[in-house]
Amino acid sequence: MKWKRSERLVDMTHYLLEHPQQLIPLTFFAELYQSAKSSISEDLSIVKDTFEERGIGLLVTVPGAAGGVKYIPKMPEEAVKEVMQELLKELSHSDRLLPGGYLFMTDLLGNPELMNRVGKVFASAFCDKEIDVIMTVATKGISIAHAIARHLNVPVVVVRRDNKVTEGSTVSINYVSGSSRRIQTMVLSKRSMQSGQRVLITDDFMKVGGTMNGMKNLLEEFDCTLAGIAVLVEAEHLDERLVDDYYSLVKLKEVNEKDRTIALSEGNYF
Amino acid sequence: MKWKRSERLVDMTHYLLEHPQQLIPLTFFAELYQSAKSSISEDLSIVKDTFEERGIGLLVTVPGAAGGVKYIPKMPEEAVKEVMQELLKELSHSDRLLPGGYLFMTDLLGNPELMNRVGKVFASAFCDKEIDVIMTVATKGISIAHAIARHLNVPVVVVRRDNKVTEGSTVSINYVSGSSRRIQTMVLSKRSMQSGQRVLITDDFMKVGGTMNGMKNLLEEFDCTLAGIAVLVEAEHLDERLVDDYYSLVKLKEVNEKDRTIALSEGNYF
Repeated sequence: MKWKRSERLVDMTHYLLEHPQQLIPLTFFAELYQSAKSSISEDLSIVKDTFEERGIGLLVTVPGAAGGVKYIPKMPEEAVKEVMQELLKELSHSDRLLPGGYLFMTDLLGNPELMNRVGKVFASAFCDKEIDVIMTVATKGISIAHAIARHLNVPVVVVRRDNKVTEGSTVSINYVSGSSRRIQTMVLSKRSMQSGQRVLITDDFMKVGGTMNGMKNLLEEFDCTLAGIAVLVEAEHLDERLVDDYYSLVKLKEVNEKDRTIALSEGNYF
Repeated sequence: MKWKRSERLVDMTHYLLEHPQQLIPLTFFAELYQSAKSSISEDLSIVKDTFEERGIGLLVTVPGAAGGVKYIPKMPEEAVKEVMQELLKELSHSDRLLPGGYLFMTDLLGNPELMNRVGKVFASAFCDKEIDVIMTVATKGISIAHAIARHLNVPVVVVRRDNKVTEGSTVSINYVSGSSRRIQTMVLSKRSMQSGQRVLITDDFMKVGGTMNGMKNLLEEFDCTLAGIAVLVEAEHLDERLVDDYYSLVKLKEVNEKDRTIALSEGNYF
């Protein structure tokens, strides 16, 4: 069956969105739709213009025999700001205050629509950083890690606090948690990463950065390189931070448990 | 700016895919694209035909003033079978064998492309079951839960084994783990669910079903209803299972640690 342009555009859009950061040869589409490569090129230029016009992302064309087209999820600045504003608004509700000055965020981390956009925000920041793996620590960072992974099309590895038989052989390290200064353990399956991979570390919350620093040490055990750090919420504090060079979307400036107020500002994303 | 049909089709496809299971009024698209409702209707019928022809999903039109259009992710049988076959092939490698007859699956659970398809498979099975919430237990079920959630557009709640300050007030129950017959604890944040919600339970692995049964008991504490159970891999065993009426994609029939062989078959999905 020969496809009409309108049908090709719908199907092509779906295919590209489902295969981010993958080089797709034009012949793939030409064969799939039984159409000439010149028609496919015209289709792709319509998709490209619409993706860019509407802030969906970039469509990069690689010329030559080994070439093709690649969809790169990239959010425009205004859309990123909208996500930040939504997070600020959500997090400022006083009923999120927990004993000890913590914020309840579990509902946000479980919201697939919001997480999808948060993932796209971070994927946009790291889209040209050649990330191979996204690393997070159980439990709360997992949804963010997967949301980013979907847009960068790379695997997620989850560091655990305990050793489980289902992980096979593991590498474990001890680290000092930033705030409580306690010695803690991190465990990661040996098969998770190969040496030389570029790793993006992510988590939902960072104060002094002890957990992030632990993950940094852990990836050195695998001979991997730190390619970036992404946190949803960073908390302001007086001590020196153990990691620098990270992206955050929200900064928690102050929590007043008596007045039940939460002071927030935009993170350092821009 | 007035949009051309070709541009509308690309943008509309993206919008619908990003908003599954949501009723979108035709006026929304008409205003967005500065186009007549009759043109939007024609666009949508092209999208609908292509989505159905290519097995992307259904586009349901609800007539009337409060009506609109809704994208329902639904995979055709052949595509589901492909996912099952891919899982069978992946899981049959003897290097996945772990001491105690366990299988290493962590890499599959961290693969965003595979998880996205697994999520769509389960979302297809439950697309008309009016699911309100997806519940899983930390850590390994989280990626599957989020993958399903994205296609059903409902929140994920994560049951934990330990109580953490960041969860706020919690409800906890004790349950007997199926295989080891040990008493274990499950904890869930009180704010996670509201009474009357319909809950889909999911996990990566099920043997006797003790963990699933624990989650079932936990959701009763919240006055919620069990709407379904989805497991990636179920293991065959002799005892009676604690839960019935579940969907699985793979059945682990036998593991021979001496010969290093793994016997698998398709799960009970069909």
